[in-house]
Amino acid sequence: MIPARRRRATIHDVAVEAGVSRGTVSRVVNDEPYVSASARIAIEAAIEKVGYVPNNAARSLVMQRSEAVGFIVHEPHSLFLDDPNIGGILLGANTVLSRADYQMVSLVIDSQRDTDRVARYLSGGFVDGVVIVSARHEDPITRVIEKLRLPAAFVGHPPDLQALPFVGIDNRASARAITERLMQTGRTRIGMVAAALDRDSGADRLAGFTDALGDRFDPALVARVPLYTFADGAQGMRELLERDPLIDGVFAASDAVAAGALEALRDAGRSVPSDVGIVGFDDSTWALRTQPHLSTVHQPAFGLGAAAAECVLGQLRGEEQPPGGILLETPIVWRDSA
Amino acid sequence: MIPARRRRATIHDVAVEAGVSRGTVSRVVNDEPYVSASARIAIEAAIEKVGYVPNNAARSLVMQRSEAVGFIVHEPHSLFLDDPNIGGILLGANTVLSRADYQMVSLVIDSQRDTDRVARYLSGGFVDGVVIVSARHEDPITRVIEKLRLPAAFVGHPPDLQALPFVGIDNRASARAITERLMQTGRTRIGMVAAALDRDSGADRLAGFTDALGDRFDPALVARVPLYTFADGAQGMRELLERDPLIDGVFAASDAVAAGALEALRDAGRSVPSDVGIVGFDDSTWALRTQPHLSTVHQPAFGLGAAAAECVLGQLRGEEQPPGGILLETPIVWRDSA
Repeated sequence: MIPARRRRATIHDVAVEAGVSRGTVSRVVNDEPYVSASARIAIEAAIEKVGYVPNNAARSLVMQRSEAVGFIVHEPHSLFLDDPNIGGILLGANTVLSRADYQMVSLVIDSQRDTDRVARYLSGGFVDGVVIVSARHEDPITRVIEKLRLPAAFVGHPPDLQALPFVGIDNRASARAITERLMQTGRTRIGMVAAALDRDSGADRLAGFTDALGDRFDPALVARVPLYTFADGAQGMRELLERDPLIDGVFAASDAVAAGALEALRDAGRSVPSDVGIVGFDDSTWALRTQPHLSTVHQPAFGLGAAAAECVLGQLRGEEQPPGGILLETPIVWRDSA
Repeated sequence: MIPARRRRATIHDVAVEAGVSRGTVSRVVNDEPYVSASARIAIEAAIEKVGYVPNNAARSLVMQRSEAVGFIVHEPHSLFLDDPNIGGILLGANTVLSRADYQMVSLVIDSQRDTDRVARYLSGGFVDGVVIVSARHEDPITRVIEKLRLPAAFVGHPPDLQALPFVGIDNRASARAITERLMQTGRTRIGMVAAALDRDSGADRLAGFTDALGDRFDPALVARVPLYTFADGAQGMRELLERDPLIDGVFAASDAVAAGALEALRDAGRSVPSDVGIVGFDDSTWALRTQPHLSTVHQPAFGLGAAAAECVLGQLRGEEQPPGGILLETPIVWRDSA
């Protein structure tokens, strides 16, 4: 049998083993003077024997800093299984924080219980700042961050907190640009599978699509689905095909949505791009895994995470932050699907 | 301009604001007696005004516990972008830890610098236990866990630490079972795209494939690629087609590998499953996104994370752990690719 939990050795264990006071052990551990050579030798041997490791957490907390920055992902299950950007954002933030010798700790919020506990964790002083991905409207975590005055940066636009720093992209302008590029291929009946309209990104992408089409915009050619997922993309595309069998161009609100739409088109016997041209959004790992590969908008996931982490580090150094948010570039990547 | 970092309020700020000693503030915060009513009122007003929140981290550390459990992912970038299991494992662990009111903190190891810093973090007493995914051979983090006697559970078999608890699957038996099922479809030239042979899972999947074929095993029909990725799957399949254009069955070491192999087969003009039957491993999100959908081995990602978290909680409660590891079931899911 594996032994039951082996308790972490304490300074008390070292003192007992070495036959000295805890104060003497403390002086040796903290490299202070006034310890006899023989006591020092006995204590060092005892430290080795009981496997004692000084508790730096307690030490750093006395100084009111944890040397850690939280990375909060507030999403239901589907994000972790479906969202192709989260990994890049996380790695971008981790790379920047690691270089500055901060420990990034990711905190997952997947339930109300998680929300309450993460709020307590933030209040508890375990992190010096936070990067937040996918904050919701009137998010209780955002309220906690405000109350604690924690240095923070949002990835994406915080729906109701204009005053907190954020790093994002211009979803509306990007959606407009890719739709215009799709129009230039000569398509005449262009629709959209719009997703996540309860979020800024989803609503902005639909607005950009509408901007691009102008007078040619036909609300009947917009299918609305709840999530940026493959399944919802397939569902939305089936709806569009029912409403207008002659549709020849589609802007899918994300690459995952586009991949689902491609499957629905394949099932309906439509060829891409000859019958229907389709464009996505994200330039995620999905884009090169569909057949044909997706023409899409490049979302700089790594850069978003890195910039948000830089923003938090700047606040920790006491630097003024620029007003509003930082918007990163989103080049169009043109491949084979349109 | 957004103001520069707003310092977290301390007990000192409250004392100055209320015009009392820090000790008096401390007694109020900790709900202790011997504080005059007027002082209590002044202190409560000051707490509200300066936005002070008691530092629970320092408190809990005095009691030698953090109420947090680490979730360590030790992988290069590609995992976060390509691995379809990690999200499920993470959610399984988070669900169990959340129910027990433990905060899960994910720690990403992506560089040597990360390794050193995570080792310091674990040593610092910030977590009471750890779940470790993808430990490597002679992993320095594993050494730190041993030294600290931290309650720990590995997802997957730790390569060189038989004594530490783990939760995993029987890769060899599962690979044998899916290969046998593929043989039952009447295929006569069966090959494998073997990946990640430097890891137990990769080596065991090849061994199971070899077991199933027995006398019919032909080493020329094994393509060896470094990673469980789409790109390596495509590369491995191209190699197999060159070596034997008449190959009619393929076991791909993972679903991502199978998806890449499908693309190589499509490019070569081969139809799946009529010309070539292909099976994968994982039953991840990939399996339903390929065309045709993959016949594969179900890997219980959520269950692995949940069981590993239960194992750590059991150790924290002082319970004896069963010797060796826990192996979860891996049913075959038969779909359309073979």
